[in-house]
Amino acid sequence: MAKKRNIGSIPGTIVYTGNVTGTQVSINYLEYNQNGYRAESALNNGEITIYPPIDEYIQWYDIRGLHDNDLMQKIVSSFKIHPLVIEDAVDIHQRPTYVEYLDGHFISLKSLEFNSEKSTVEKETVSIYFGNKFIITFQENEDDIFKVIRERIINKKGRVVAKGADYLAYIIVDYIVDNYFSVLDAVEEQVEELEESISLQSDDVDKLSIYKLKKNILKIRKSIAPLREAVNLFSRSDSKLIDSKTLTFIKDVYDHTIQIIDNADSLRDILSGLQDLYISEVSLQMNKVMQVLTIITAIFVPLSFLAGLYGMNFVNIPELRAQNGYYILIGIMVLIALSMIYFFKSRKWF
Amino acid sequence: MAKKRNIGSIPGTIVYTGNVTGTQVSINYLEYNQNGYRAESALNNGEITIYPPIDEYIQWYDIRGLHDNDLMQKIVSSFKIHPLVIEDAVDIHQRPTYVEYLDGHFISLKSLEFNSEKSTVEKETVSIYFGNKFIITFQENEDDIFKVIRERIINKKGRVVAKGADYLAYIIVDYIVDNYFSVLDAVEEQVEELEESISLQSDDVDKLSIYKLKKNILKIRKSIAPLREAVNLFSRSDSKLIDSKTLTFIKDVYDHTIQIIDNADSLRDILSGLQDLYISEVSLQMNKVMQVLTIITAIFVPLSFLAGLYGMNFVNIPELRAQNGYYILIGIMVLIALSMIYFFKSRKWF
Amino acid sequence: MAKKRNIGSIPGTIVYTGNVTGTQVSINYLEYNQNGYRAESALNNGEITIYPPIDEYIQWYDIRGLHDNDLMQKIVSSFKIHPLVIEDAVDIHQRPTYVEYLDGHFISLKSLEFNSEKSTVEKETVSIYFGNKFIITFQENEDDIFKVIRERIINKKGRVVAKGADYLAYIIVDYIVDNYFSVLDAVEEQVEELEESISLQSDDVDKLSIYKLKKNILKIRKSIAPLREAVNLFSRSDSKLIDSKTLTFIKDVYDHTIQIIDNADSLRDILSGLQDLYISEVSLQMNKVMQVLTIITAIFVPLSFLAGLYGMNFVNIPELRAQNGYYILIGIMVLIALSMIYFFKSRKWF
Amino acid sequence: MAKKRNIGSIPGTIVYTGNVTGTQVSINYLEYNQNGYRAESALNNGEITIYPPIDEYIQWYDIRGLHDNDLMQKIVSSFKIHPLVIEDAVDIHQRPTYVEYLDGHFISLKSLEFNSEKSTVEKETVSIYFGNKFIITFQENEDDIFKVIRERIINKKGRVVAKGADYLAYIIVDYIVDNYFSVLDAVEEQVEELEESISLQSDDVDKLSIYKLKKNILKIRKSIAPLREAVNLFSRSDSKLIDSKTLTFIKDVYDHTIQIIDNADSLRDILSGLQDLYISEVSLQMNKVMQVLTIITAIFVPLSFLAGLYGMNFVNIPELRAQNGYYILIGIMVLIALSMIYFFKSRKWF
Amino acid sequence: MAKKRNIGSIPGTIVYTGNVTGTQVSINYLEYNQNGYRAESALNNGEITIYPPIDEYIQWYDIRGLHDNDLMQKIVSSFKIHPLVIEDAVDIHQRPTYVEYLDGHFISLKSLEFNSEKSTVEKETVSIYFGNKFIITFQENEDDIFKVIRERIINKKGRVVAKGADYLAYIIVDYIVDNYFSVLDAVEEQVEELEESISLQSDDVDKLSIYKLKKNILKIRKSIAPLREAVNLFSRSDSKLIDSKTLTFIKDVYDHTIQIIDNADSLRDILSGLQDLYISEVSLQMNKVMQVLTIITAIFVPLSFLAGLYGMNFVNIPELRAQNGYYILIGIMVLIALSMIYFFKSRKWF
Repeated sequence: MAKKRNIGSIPGTIVYTGNVTGTQVSINYLEYNQNGYRAESALNNGEITIYPPIDEYIQWYDIRGLHDNDLMQKIVSSFKIHPLVIEDAVDIHQRPTYVEYLDGHFISLKSLEFNSEKSTVEKETVSIYFGNKFIITFQENEDDIFKVIRERIINKKGRVVAKGADYLAYIIVDYIVDNYFSVLDAVEEQVEELEESISLQSDDVDKLSIYKLKKNILKIRKSIAPLREAVNLFSRSDSKLIDSKTLTFIKDVYDHTIQIIDNADSLRDILSGLQDLYISEVSLQMNKVMQVLTIITAIFVPLSFLAGLYGMNFVNIPELRAQNGYYILIGIMVLIALSMIYFFKSRKWF
Repeated sequence: MAKKRNIGSIPGTIVYTGNVTGTQVSINYLEYNQNGYRAESALNNGEITIYPPIDEYIQWYDIRGLHDNDLMQKIVSSFKIHPLVIEDAVDIHQRPTYVEYLDGHFISLKSLEFNSEKSTVEKETVSIYFGNKFIITFQENEDDIFKVIRERIINKKGRVVAKGADYLAYIIVDYIVDNYFSVLDAVEEQVEELEESISLQSDDVDKLSIYKLKKNILKIRKSIAPLREAVNLFSRSDSKLIDSKTLTFIKDVYDHTIQIIDNADSLRDILSGLQDLYISEVSLQMNKVMQVLTIITAIFVPLSFLAGLYGMNFVNIPELRAQNGYYILIGIMVLIALSMIYFFKSRKWF
Repeated sequence: MAKKRNIGSIPGTIVYTGNVTGTQVSINYLEYNQNGYRAESALNNGEITIYPPIDEYIQWYDIRGLHDNDLMQKIVSSFKIHPLVIEDAVDIHQRPTYVEYLDGHFISLKSLEFNSEKSTVEKETVSIYFGNKFIITFQENEDDIFKVIRERIINKKGRVVAKGADYLAYIIVDYIVDNYFSVLDAVEEQVEELEESISLQSDDVDKLSIYKLKKNILKIRKSIAPLREAVNLFSRSDSKLIDSKTLTFIKDVYDHTIQIIDNADSLRDILSGLQDLYISEVSLQMNKVMQVLTIITAIFVPLSFLAGLYGMNFVNIPELRAQNGYYILIGIMVLIALSMIYFFKSRKWF
Repeated sequence: MAKKRNIGSIPGTIVYTGNVTGTQVSINYLEYNQNGYRAESALNNGEITIYPPIDEYIQWYDIRGLHDNDLMQKIVSSFKIHPLVIEDAVDIHQRPTYVEYLDGHFISLKSLEFNSEKSTVEKETVSIYFGNKFIITFQENEDDIFKVIRERIINKKGRVVAKGADYLAYIIVDYIVDNYFSVLDAVEEQVEELEESISLQSDDVDKLSIYKLKKNILKIRKSIAPLREAVNLFSRSDSKLIDSKTLTFIKDVYDHTIQIIDNADSLRDILSGLQDLYISEVSLQMNKVMQVLTIITAIFVPLSFLAGLYGMNFVNIPELRAQNGYYILIGIMVLIALSMIYFFKSRKWF
Repeated sequence: MAKKRNIGSIPGTIVYTGNVTGTQVSINYLEYNQNGYRAESALNNGEITIYPPIDEYIQWYDIRGLHDNDLMQKIVSSFKIHPLVIEDAVDIHQRPTYVEYLDGHFISLKSLEFNSEKSTVEKETVSIYFGNKFIITFQENEDDIFKVIRERIINKKGRVVAKGADYLAYIIVDYIVDNYFSVLDAVEEQVEELEESISLQSDDVDKLSIYKLKKNILKIRKSIAPLREAVNLFSRSDSKLIDSKTLTFIKDVYDHTIQIIDNADSLRDILSGLQDLYISEVSLQMNKVMQVLTIITAIFVPLSFLAGLYGMNFVNIPELRAQNGYYILIGIMVLIALSMIYFFKSRKWF
């Protein structure tokens, strides 16, 4: 995990806290309304082109990559953003939050993805800042995670082209929250696999898998839980930057957020049930092992003693001289063995 | 579990998230008041007949089956419903919720049933949308789960025929919540059976049964817990679509909802007590096995050693030549065995 | 447990949900004020005599037995009670609750008793409906649980004869809540007995007793916890049916209710501490058993091997021919045994 | 524990619920202001002298011993106290509470003391009732627990002599809460001792000590937790009996109360961490025992088998006749033993 | 831990509760604004120089060391501070809190540091009192923990020189809270190391490490949790001593505080997952040991019995006289051993 926090730095300082990868920051610009759109995509050459606001057009600046501090500084001054917005946007450890500033609203949340190869959940910090007729989105790396939304705008699907920046912000949050469901489904599938392998007492139960799944669920919960409060604030906003009709939609996202947390909690509970099951499986298996050990010991140790007894070299052991002594002893031994077996059968040990 | 969520789709899009079964969607129409009723039942031929509102009659459209997106689209436009209503109605993963829209109120909840064969709890999503003088109910499949209510209306039993659509909505919610009690009772019966078999140390304790019951209770809780908030909102509504006299009844449903959650929690606690009991049973049984093993070992291993000692072939072992050596040794062995038995008796090992 | 719930019935329907015992419903009437009283007691002959209200007298109808639906119907119509009141009063599964209706207030709660023979807590549902100058109490069976209160009224002890129906309702709730303390004390005594028998490692620890006590405490908690909210509502009522001076007393009952819940929680925590103690006792005992087994094995198995070695029949084993071979071997064996004992002593195994 | 509750008695009845000890109730009177003081101390001769209020003097009646019901009755009538005050003051099971009556305020709390001999926490119920210029304190027995405060008044230390009865009430509560810290410190010391003895695997870990400490912390928590709410109410009072400047001080006590609860919770968590540590210690020790057993068995059982093999009396066992057979076998045995040891070394079993 | 609390002392008494070290108290004075600064540093000679307020300059008195009660007394009288402020400032057990007094605001919090040598978290109590144009900070010892902030002021970095005392207070709180992240990161690193060593079943898992980490996290949580409420109060203050623009920044610190608590809780949950993993590891290892023991016993004990059988000295054992008896027996023994091995293989015991 990246741990380069900007501890001790001046508040409002723009310090990227993630790992700087080689890739360049890119800026993707889209302006649209019901009538048409214009898209510009540029690698960051140290400059950001600020397109003049056009009447009735929504301007969307999609910043991919957070490690260019100069660029961030320019964004702050161009859009007159409160310095804390950018400080929080470039802090990949930022907790999901919703803050209303004077000229714009800031939303920070986590985009989750399930890495099926490593069986881990990977998170990326996404921030949204929107004001009147413009929106800026920030994400850690160059993946085009909003491709679906952009295409929807370009193809004029849905209501988004007829609505303001607040609705686009809602669409983005909704899209990310919807994604949580597929991440949880993937984790749930793994829980179900684990359940099967434990209940079948199959031997390839990876002892670490319960722990790993727990960590995944914890990670998801930690990423989503604070969003509940954030989306709640968003859905109750009385800012004039947010259309009251949009609020109905945001309340729907709020409902989904709670549902996701419910599902995560439910998975966690199922998992801890599985852990209890696993532990009692281990105990039961130990019991079986002990029973085998005890049965064998209990049958053969007394018999061995008898054999040892008549292997002694005392000059005077009358039984040894009996013609049928050996056969009688064998008979006695069979009796002992049978009664032992009967004893264990009656205790249902096998 | 059906996992076809409409992730990434446009908000308000109608996408059925359950499994599409072969059965056709059917629409059952009932209009009634204190004076009489008219019922129509039709398979979905891709059309829905919208009956014109009649003075003082309540119109109930009972839609069974959610997978015909065209039909749903027609309902949206015919009744001028907010698109989110239908999106939520056809989403079988929808969390129980209550939302007031301008022209109607939406309630989503889960109908639970105990499948006694598989010992699982099965849930079906039921949604209710009611406005002035009309109500639309949505359910996943073709079972006539509201038969009892329909017959009550037809036979003019109870107050329902004299009341509005809000009261019918209440009756339906009340009916579903009442059903939860019988589901919980079935689970409780299983918990009691499990309790008996564990406390009798019977051997046919299914190791999975505690886990399965836990999962069932979790499922019930997850289905019901959000209903608490939903019914609470319903019972505190100040909408003019809801008669204030109906609110008293809804408050009663609210009480029942809390009681159901209480009962589920109580069952969960009893179950975790049972689990602790089971685990200590397993430990105690292991103790018993170990004691048997130890007693047999402790008695026969020293005796076998003595026998082995006098089975040695040293030329000079004076005891072997004693005329009564064998008998004396047998005596000593009996003494050792008895003192061992006494030792274990004093420790109350058997 | 009685499980005949009125599932699917029309709301407000009067259906007794308990077990119908052979006993007849009896009605006990008492009218009183500071000046005098009149008591009437009658078995239910299918009728209820409604006594006309007398100026400045309080009328108390004490209904014992809930299974006569006709009688209940008559009470509803005679006193103009909201139908939900009686539905809830005859539902023995009713959660403790407090509801204010237009003409009267309804309180439902559980009367608990400790059955010292079976070591179980038994509960009975008691409901109170009081209005202006009258009170109706409902209880499941024919026990005269309010005898103490009735005698107090007849003997003009305390303030009750000078106060209204609200004060009598308070007195009844207070009496039932006070009883909880003795039930909890009885359970606490059992917990203390269990504590002693576990800490003394006595063998007659009933493995089920922890589980049973847990269930008892759960049952108590489930009966009392909802009362907290109910009595709180009662104590904050601004209804004109309740004298403000009575509220001070109800607040005192509220305090007692919280205290009872505190005590039950505290007992539950002590019990789970006891369970942990018991489990570690079992583990420790297993450790002791294992140590005995290991010590015996570790001492005698090597010795037996040596004895077996010199019991072999090789033609050429020089040691066997040594005159003192036997004695030397015995010496070596003693040395081995002593060093083993020393080893285990140093590990403090005995 | 004393369990003589006044169950079923008339509300407001004065019934002492503790154990009546032989000692007499004593009354200690102190009147003071900035100019001087007068102290009177009297054993209870069945009478209480009510001193007439003197201008600008605070009157403090310190009642030690609660079992004289007549005296309590006289206090009720002399000071015109609400009967519930005295009922609660003499109920030693009273939950910490704060109630404002018309002419005075009532505070009930627990004075805790750590009995280092028995390692238990002992509690005493202390109640305070203060009005305009007077204060009455009630305590269970004759210890002069407020000696420090009285001396502070007599020696005119601190602000107390210049302030009202409300400030004296605050001083008393503050003093008792301060004492909680030393009780918790004593318990903490015991937890630290236990921690050391468990982490050193010393053998004198008293198996009961964790349980006993848990019970102590539970007892402390139960005594203090309700005080939080009580002191909160006290600190937010807008009664004219309490000077607004005093409120700042009471808020400080409130802070301390929360801190105490925090500390108790923290201790409880540390203790449950210790318990987990202890349980895994026990398991690890069992593992060690099992390993010793297994190593000895695994080395000697195969060797014993070989020895037994060549102790057989078959007429034709060629190996027995080999001149070096014995030495070769010894060599094989050493090889087996070494490879076993190597196997266990490689598994890090010793 | 230092335990010298001022129990029983007069409220508002200045009693240092920490350990008095030999070091002298030092006072560091800094006055600054946008135009310049003046710094004075002095060891405490029993006096404190009170610098006269200069127009538009902020005065910062940084007191290092709390054990000089006389000095504290002088500060109280010089700055007209409420006596409780200093009592709380010198109480190193003071819970993080925020109190607004008439002329100034008081913040108490803990500065944490991770001692990587002892693997413990060390805390120091820091208090801040700020009023109009001045701020006083209190810390336990002579470390210059605010060096970074002082340099920032001197070098005119950031906004701080242009703002009031409220902003400096914010900067200090922000700095301390930021430090929590690095402490948590250090603990997280240790948790990750532990995770690795447990999951690799490495033998050098320190049995105490889980317990120690738990204690560390508890300590951190206890230090930070109350800060949440304190910073919340701070961020919602409507005092005229705090500029409304500063509030936005304080809300940001509030967010960080919640995030820290989230992280600590998350670590605690991961740790308890690790503990479960460790316990099941121990159980699984025991299972393996038991299996080895059982396999060896099950193979060799029956064989030894057979060998013992033919080592008996009966005069008439026909098998012994068979020419190939020995070889046949060896064959039978091999068969028995193989079938045992097959049995255990089929149970997947090795």
